Amino acid sequence: MIDIHSAIASLRWDREPQGLYAPIAYTLESGGKRLRPTLALIAASLYGKEENALPAALALEIFHNFTLLHDDVMDQAPIRRGRKTVHVKWDDNTAILSGDQMLIEAYKQLENIDAQHLPHVLHLFSKMATEICEGQQYDMEFEKEEKVTIEEYIEMIRLKTSVLLGAALEIGAYIADAPESDRQALEVFGTNIGLAFQIQDDILDVYGDEATFGKAIGGDILQNKKSLALLMALHHANEDQLFRLQGWLHRTEYLPEEKIKAVTAIYNEIGVRELCQAEMDRYTQIAIEALKQLSVDATPLLQLADKLHQRNN
Amino acid sequence: MIDIHSAIASLRWDREPQGLYAPIAYTLESGGKRLRPTLALIAASLYGKEENALPAALALEIFHNFTLLHDDVMDQAPIRRGRKTVHVKWDDNTAILSGDQMLIEAYKQLENIDAQHLPHVLHLFSKMATEICEGQQYDMEFEKEEKVTIEEYIEMIRLKTSVLLGAALEIGAYIADAPESDRQALEVFGTNIGLAFQIQDDILDVYGDEATFGKAIGGDILQNKKSLALLMALHHANEDQLFRLQGWLHRTEYLPEEKIKAVTAIYNEIGVRELCQAEMDRYTQIAIEALKQLSVDATPLLQLADKLHQRNN
Repeated sequence: MIDIHSAIASLRWDREPQGLYAPIAYTLESGGKRLRPTLALIAASLYGKEENALPAALALEIFHNFTLLHDDVMDQAPIRRGRKTVHVKWDDNTAILSGDQMLIEAYKQLENIDAQHLPHVLHLFSKMATEICEGQQYDMEFEKEEKVTIEEYIEMIRLKTSVLLGAALEIGAYIADAPESDRQALEVFGTNIGLAFQIQDDILDVYGDEATFGKAIGGDILQNKKSLALLMALHHANEDQLFRLQGWLHRTEYLPEEKIKAVTAIYNEIGVRELCQAEMDRYTQIAIEALKQLSVDATPLLQLADKLHQRNN
Repeated sequence: MIDIHSAIASLRWDREPQGLYAPIAYTLESGGKRLRPTLALIAASLYGKEENALPAALALEIFHNFTLLHDDVMDQAPIRRGRKTVHVKWDDNTAILSGDQMLIEAYKQLENIDAQHLPHVLHLFSKMATEICEGQQYDMEFEKEEKVTIEEYIEMIRLKTSVLLGAALEIGAYIADAPESDRQALEVFGTNIGLAFQIQDDILDVYGDEATFGKAIGGDILQNKKSLALLMALHHANEDQLFRLQGWLHRTEYLPEEKIKAVTAIYNEIGVRELCQAEMDRYTQIAIEALKQLSVDATPLLQLADKLHQRNN
């Protein structure tokens, strides 16, 4: 089994100018689950060709971290994975330019794919990258819009986060010469696991345990973020609940703990946790169903889905 | 002959979300010389395969415009080619994200290259893109540094602007199956023409004609920009000239026209125009020498070099 954490750690960034490369090293060394490259490697390993997927796995992880770096500039987020974000530790220009270089570095990894598989991988990779930019654009637009439907929100998170998981599996399987029907089933699995994963993030932001979640609980509530929790609440609230919820959304003076407590209480009345949980379970189910189409034993992916479903961070 | 202006104009950006794609359309429709794609097409045409180079030509022009878009954010430049820059017309986040998407769109164009040539073109393209990011990083660092040598400046502009011209020619020639020695000679031609071109920009910024140059004369002087003109002046000034020049560099209160006039007068005393012109001619000469190595008739490139050498904008 390839150790993806070591593989990423062994990428070298000690070249000049360090003003460009040090922020890349910093971003990639700050860890995370390495979920996307792991998915690519597992997909390839199902067909006995894990090694072949390593360049794509590295490309996917570098690309994912590029999106986080630029997203953090756009959101002016101060902290990522418990450390200062690049635009805070350095400055906005550094974050923009080092991010650009990370995107190029992701494509550079694809050079290590054999010539036979390269054209289609390049196509899948750029298609995924485009969808992620589109998702980020919708995310920024939605924060300014008065009304966002649940369907629009799901489509946004599909683009912004889920297609990357789907692409990771599809690319890994393609490089390992999986049959086309398997590749499609794996893409469906990845995209739907991704939707479940993102919905779970929204749930954990309200109902998680601060110690294990790794960031403050209630952040979405304080920012009036149009998470699935809020959209579900707005959709299912009765008149009285809607009145109280809107009150908190428009209030400008309050103690943070007070707003989190009050909004969570309204969510509890409405049953937001269960509504979101049901959506999450639904996507997980679609994902697991897709695996039944595979021509190979899907146990490693079922185990991963189970682990993600049980996670609390 | 392919009409590169029409080819770029026929790229479609009328898809959703327009918040992402409209700034790309705006950037690409604002014109410019289309020098980089033209170089790729000319290189390929020397070997009778102009058509084959079109995807790479489009990729190069989209990439070049991506760098302008992000550079304008980093420099907070208000105007580009006589129009508001994207970060002014929209906002910084739009410029960052649409720029990211342009970089991806550049790579997407490479998908249209035949499988046989794709791997090496992808390699050359990413190598060039990396060098340009490195050049931009050095450019930003130099603006904060006390002392920059002429050698450091030349290396910076080689990375920031010249390698793109060299890569355009090398990629065009490679796609057209030019012999390796020709590809190398064309790369040398492009890089050195690029250096001459950039030096000419520095000269025109001081000595150009406002009407034909398309931007205000003396911009570099007002910003104390470490252009070749200033570096040459600092290097060749006598004690008295250096004292007066440093005075203007450190003065904070002045009329713009007054500073431009005074610094230009010092440049004239030192002979900065001739010093820069000599450097420019030297690189032009290296470029033209390289063409003598070619196995094919280089007339179209000699004509282009001549046109660039005579330009006043």
